[in-house]
Amino acid sequence: MAVILDGKKVSLDIQEELRIETKERVERGRKKPHLAAVLVGDDPASQTYVAAKVKACERVGFDSTLIKLPEITTEKELMEEIKLLNENPKIDGFIVQLPLPKHINEEKVIQAINPKKDVDGFHPQNVGRMVLGLPTFLPATPNGILEILKRYKVNTIGKHCVIIGRSHIVGLPMSILMGQNYYPGNSTVTLTHSRTKNLKEICQEADIIIIAIGKPNFLTADMVKEGVVIIDVGINRVPDETKKRGYRLEGDVDYNEVIKKSSFITPVPGGVGPMTIASLLINTLNATKLNSK
Amino acid sequence: MAVILDGKKVSLDIQEELRIETKERVERGRKKPHLAAVLVGDDPASQTYVAAKVKACERVGFDSTLIKLPEITTEKELMEEIKLLNENPKIDGFIVQLPLPKHINEEKVIQAINPKKDVDGFHPQNVGRMVLGLPTFLPATPNGILEILKRYKVNTIGKHCVIIGRSHIVGLPMSILMGQNYYPGNSTVTLTHSRTKNLKEICQEADIIIIAIGKPNFLTADMVKEGVVIIDVGINRVPDETKKRGYRLEGDVDYNEVIKKSSFITPVPGGVGPMTIASLLINTLNATKLNSK
Repeated sequence: MAVILDGKKVSLDIQEELRIETKERVERGRKKPHLAAVLVGDDPASQTYVAAKVKACERVGFDSTLIKLPEITTEKELMEEIKLLNENPKIDGFIVQLPLPKHINEEKVIQAINPKKDVDGFHPQNVGRMVLGLPTFLPATPNGILEILKRYKVNTIGKHCVIIGRSHIVGLPMSILMGQNYYPGNSTVTLTHSRTKNLKEICQEADIIIIAIGKPNFLTADMVKEGVVIIDVGINRVPDETKKRGYRLEGDVDYNEVIKKSSFITPVPGGVGPMTIASLLINTLNATKLNSK
Repeated sequence: MAVILDGKKVSLDIQEELRIETKERVERGRKKPHLAAVLVGDDPASQTYVAAKVKACERVGFDSTLIKLPEITTEKELMEEIKLLNENPKIDGFIVQLPLPKHINEEKVIQAINPKKDVDGFHPQNVGRMVLGLPTFLPATPNGILEILKRYKVNTIGKHCVIIGRSHIVGLPMSILMGQNYYPGNSTVTLTHSRTKNLKEICQEADIIIIAIGKPNFLTADMVKEGVVIIDVGINRVPDETKKRGYRLEGDVDYNEVIKKSSFITPVPGGVGPMTIASLLINTLNATKLNSK
């Protein structure tokens, strides 16, 4: 019987812990965490994501500021906004919601963020600190996966962990973190990608599979061994006429079949997805502590 | 018949290319590259390494400055020296030879170096830029290994590359670089370490093995398959009374046996070792170009 890794529950647990810690902080006269989010343009998905982040801040007792800029904002104007946020002592951490309009260089924008306020963990300096095992802000999805593994006490030490997909925001950092010399980690890690041959055979030897490629039902039951731990990062919209909105959400895993061979598995939705908000809030509280020093 | 990957020759080839490019630069009136090396204390090995770096600079026509500080130098004094080097427009790149005396925090020192002059590639920002595939200074040994693979046209694409050892200066960056989406790279990468189980079985499936653990003769012929590519980063002093200096140098690989099954193999000495100097010089020239912009 597989244990369902209930990311929704873990995320709410973490948020409750953060709420209590924040309440105690404020009662002791310490600074209340304050997250700012910059949203450029009118992309509906981005609006939804940012709104959820702001709402989560309210739930745990953080202050939040939403800065909405029009689609026509120039790169220079955005850089000036970032400079203000970098220098504003009231703001402990901030994010610039991606993607940005095409006339703005995302790389340049990310590098302009003060690494000490970079609660998305995207700045090269924070990526490097992660690699070197130094205190840093871990990116939201990898951090969320580590929290799930930790809270369900999944044994990762000496296990063979296969990562499918080498994106800069999930697969690659996950491969680094799972191989590091602490828990959760200390796995033997194989990073696979579009150029990998024999993926099926590699997966069949895996104790833990973390998949983030955006292809519904990609990982099938014949590709995994009995007792495997499955972390499914995919969130794919699959057309479905029986649903009011015309689609359903599916992960990268053929869930109904793979679950039969799994010891632990994340569902989609309700697995890794809800953890990203918790990670952002953890980073924001840590930024507050760091910048109050 | 294995091809011997002659790092000594490749290193000299690269140095000759750098010498010609530097000569042409200077003739066109551009700045001559200038490397500074900071050596704290009297460690004999460190003195040898630094002397070799300075000598290599002369060979390719770079300027070099050796800053020798006494063992009793305080962290604050060293930090002031670094500040001067960071600000000195004549110095394009510099290194602080490690290890430092125990009363000095290495991590703090590395982080004080201007990332644009960090030709050792140890600053977290440069490590992060490596992960993100941005232009950066790659650390000497990983960069040297990539150069060897490239110049001998070793096919890495879609190959299974097993890395043994997860050090921050070799194994871990190598695992990141070999998995990236360009050549040399695009391998399926497995990072193994002290907590790995079934290392033998994992190695037996490897097309390429990169080993950096400092244990002589660790990788034996029964652990590898026919046609394997072997990159041996180990440089171990093994007591040997037949040698004048009382020891001989051996890698981490049982060379005489493993070579029989290899398609390509690096010897020790004369394989990866000589490449580190070439890498440092490449980074210094690149720093000169970067900082002259």
